[in-house]
Amino acid sequence: MNIRFADRMEEVKPSAIREISRLIQQTPGTISFAGGWPAPELFPTEEMKAVCVNIIDEDGREALQYTSTEGYLPLREFIAKRMGASGVDIDPKDILITNGSQQGLDFSGKLFVNEGDVVICESPSYVGALSAFRAYLPRFVEVPMDEDGMIIEELEKALAQNPGAKFIYTIPDFQNPTGRTLSLERRKRLVELAVKYGVPVIEDNPYGELRFEGERLPAVKHFDTEGIVIYLGTTSKTFCPGLRVGWVAASSDIIRKYVLIKQGADLQANTLSQRQIAKFAEMYDYDAHVRGIIDVYRKRRDLMMDMIRKEFPLNISYTYPKGGLFTWVDLPEGMDAAEVLKKALEQGVAFVPGEAFYPNGGNANHFRLNYCTSSDEKIVEGIKRLGRVLKGL
Amino acid sequence: MNIRFADRMEEVKPSAIREISRLIQQTPGTISFAGGWPAPELFPTEEMKAVCVNIIDEDGREALQYTSTEGYLPLREFIAKRMGASGVDIDPKDILITNGSQQGLDFSGKLFVNEGDVVICESPSYVGALSAFRAYLPRFVEVPMDEDGMIIEELEKALAQNPGAKFIYTIPDFQNPTGRTLSLERRKRLVELAVKYGVPVIEDNPYGELRFEGERLPAVKHFDTEGIVIYLGTTSKTFCPGLRVGWVAASSDIIRKYVLIKQGADLQANTLSQRQIAKFAEMYDYDAHVRGIIDVYRKRRDLMMDMIRKEFPLNISYTYPKGGLFTWVDLPEGMDAAEVLKKALEQGVAFVPGEAFYPNGGNANHFRLNYCTSSDEKIVEGIKRLGRVLKGL
Repeated sequence: MNIRFADRMEEVKPSAIREISRLIQQTPGTISFAGGWPAPELFPTEEMKAVCVNIIDEDGREALQYTSTEGYLPLREFIAKRMGASGVDIDPKDILITNGSQQGLDFSGKLFVNEGDVVICESPSYVGALSAFRAYLPRFVEVPMDEDGMIIEELEKALAQNPGAKFIYTIPDFQNPTGRTLSLERRKRLVELAVKYGVPVIEDNPYGELRFEGERLPAVKHFDTEGIVIYLGTTSKTFCPGLRVGWVAASSDIIRKYVLIKQGADLQANTLSQRQIAKFAEMYDYDAHVRGIIDVYRKRRDLMMDMIRKEFPLNISYTYPKGGLFTWVDLPEGMDAAEVLKKALEQGVAFVPGEAFYPNGGNANHFRLNYCTSSDEKIVEGIKRLGRVLKGL
Repeated sequence: MNIRFADRMEEVKPSAIREISRLIQQTPGTISFAGGWPAPELFPTEEMKAVCVNIIDEDGREALQYTSTEGYLPLREFIAKRMGASGVDIDPKDILITNGSQQGLDFSGKLFVNEGDVVICESPSYVGALSAFRAYLPRFVEVPMDEDGMIIEELEKALAQNPGAKFIYTIPDFQNPTGRTLSLERRKRLVELAVKYGVPVIEDNPYGELRFEGERLPAVKHFDTEGIVIYLGTTSKTFCPGLRVGWVAASSDIIRKYVLIKQGADLQANTLSQRQIAKFAEMYDYDAHVRGIIDVYRKRRDLMMDMIRKEFPLNISYTYPKGGLFTWVDLPEGMDAAEVLKKALEQGVAFVPGEAFYPNGGNANHFRLNYCTSSDEKIVEGIKRLGRVLKGL
C-alpha cells in the first residue's frame, strides 16, 4: 500500500538520545550519563500518596473530569508566584498548562513557523527543541556561544541577515547541552535586540531553579516590557517528569493563541496531575523539596568534575556548570564523538555525542554528560572507564 | 509590537462549544445539553484512591519517571485485549498511547496533511476533529449521511473526484454529532474503497463501547487486511476524561510515524495515568464498570427521547441513537439554530448549534443534544423549556 504522508515527515526522525537508550538497554551493566532524566530517588513518593487521597476525598469528580484548556487556576497561581522569584511579574491568567515544556516547544513551532522560515538558536541547542521545530520545516540559523552563553554580537548579525526570522530560541540557565548560563548583561541586550528587530524570544527554562551556587539571575522575561518574550517552564526537573506538567507564560495576546493551539492539539492538560502539583505545594514545602534536589545534584556535579579532572587526558576541555544536569565535553578538533561512543559502550559507559545538538550538523567533536541520575559509585566507575577510552585514542 | 505568526493561525479559531460553555456559565441555572462531557457521578473515585496508593507502594519511582514514548506496555496489552472484543486483532506494540483521542486527531493531521490537501469526512462531523485538522490547512470534502452513516456511493464519488485525498475521517459508532452508526455492509465497502483508491481511513471510536441495545458491530478496522485503517480510541468516555488517556492503533509502519510525532510533540503520555488505568483494570472489573455507565445513559436516552416526543413540535425530527452521548435535531429548512439558541438561553436551556459541525459551513438548521450528563429532573425540565421555545417560533 503506497500511502502518501505529509512533506514534513521527511524531517521527523528518531531522536538520537532515544536511539542511544536502546543501545544501552541492549548492554546490561552499562553506566549511562546519556539521558536527561532526573534522579528518581528524589521523587516525593510517600507524599504523593497523601496528595492523591486528599484530592479525591475533597473533589474526586472534578479531579477526573474535563477542565478548562488554560488549566487549573490554583496551579497557575502557584506557578505565577514561583516565577516572581526569578523576577517575572505574570498574571496567572497569562499562563497555559502544557504537557511538559516539550509541548510548549511544539506549540511554538506551530504558532510561528511557515515552511522555510528562519528560527535562530544557540549553537549547540536542545535536541528535543530542534525536533519539535523541525516538524514545521524551518531553516535554522545558529548563534555561537562562549562561557557566558549566546554571543550577542553574533546574534545581532543573525538578526540583521535574517529580517524575517520568526523567533530566537534560548535556554538561558544551565543550558542543555552545554551547562552554560547567559550573563546578566547579555539578557538585557537579548531583549533589546528582540525589540529592535521585532523578533520574539522563546525562553526555555527547565533548570533555572536548580542552581548550586551563586545568585539566581533574573529570567530573560524579567527585562521584557513589550510582551516579546515567551517563557516555557516545567515541573519535570523540580518535581517529577511522569506527570507531564509544564507551562507557557506570555502576554495575553500571545497566550490566547497558544490556548487555541492546545484546544485543537489535545483539549487540555491532565486534570488530576495539575491538581497533584498544586496540592503538593499546598500540603508540603515545595522550596524545601527543591533544595533537597539541589543538594544531591551539587554533590554529584562536584564528584563528576573531580573525577574528570583526574581521569580525562589534558587535551580535553569541558564546562563547569553552576546548576542543571549537564556538562559538555570538547574533544580535540577532528575527533568524532560518535566513534568514541562505540568504544565507550564496549567499556560499559555511555554519553550523548554532540552532533545532534547542532541543527545544521557538523561539530562532531563534542559530547554531553548527565551527572544527576547516577549514584556516586557509578560516577566514579563510569568516569574511570571513560577516561581509559579517551586516553586510548 | 508587530509579531508575525504562521499562516495556519488564520484557521485556528476558538471552538464553538467552548464559547457556548462561557455563555452558559454567565447564566446560572441554565440546563445544558451542550457539552460532550461524561457524567462525573459515574467516575470510580473511591477505587481510584486504592489504585493510586497501590501504584506508588509497588513502584512509585517508576510511576513518576519518564517512560517510553510508545507508552506503558501493560496498558497497551489491556487495550489490545479490549480491541479484540470489537473484532480487531492488534499487537500491543502497534498501539501508541496519546493524550485522549484528540491528540490522535492532531497527529493524524500532522502525519498526512500538506496545505491544500483534501480530507474526506462525514457531513456533519466532530467539530474537535475539524479544528485539529484545520491547523494543517486541508480542504474538506464532505460526504452526506443517512440513518446508516456515510452514504457509500457519495464517498466513492468524493474519492473519484479527489484522487490526492489524504484520508477519510469517520466516527462509525454513535457518531458525534448525529448519534448515527455506520451499517455493517457499509463498513466492508468503506475498507474496499479505501484500498481501491489507496486512501487511509481514520476510524475515531470514542463511543463504540457505550451501546444500549443490539449487538456491537465489528470495528471498521476489523475488515482491514492491508493496514489502511488507523484506529483512535480513548478511555475518556468509559473511565474518565481528566486522565487524558487515548490511543492510536495502526500497522507497524504507520504507528512508527505516530511515535516519532509523539516524541517531538510532548515526549510521552503521563506515566502515572497510564498506570492508573492499567491498575484499575487489574484490581477491578472494567467491563462491569462500563455496564454501569451504559445502564445510566440508556435510561437518560430513553427519558430524553420520551420528553422530546411529548414536548417538541411535530415538524421537528431527530435521530434515535442506540448508544453514545448525542441526538441530532433537524429544524425546518431555513431556520437558524444559532438564533434558536439565543431564545433557549433566555429560557435557561442550552445546546450546540449544528453549523460548526459542517467544515464548509451552511446547514444552520440543526442542533446537538447531550442526554448523558444531566439528571432526570434536568432532562424533563430542560426539554420542556426547549419545547416551549420551539413551539414559539
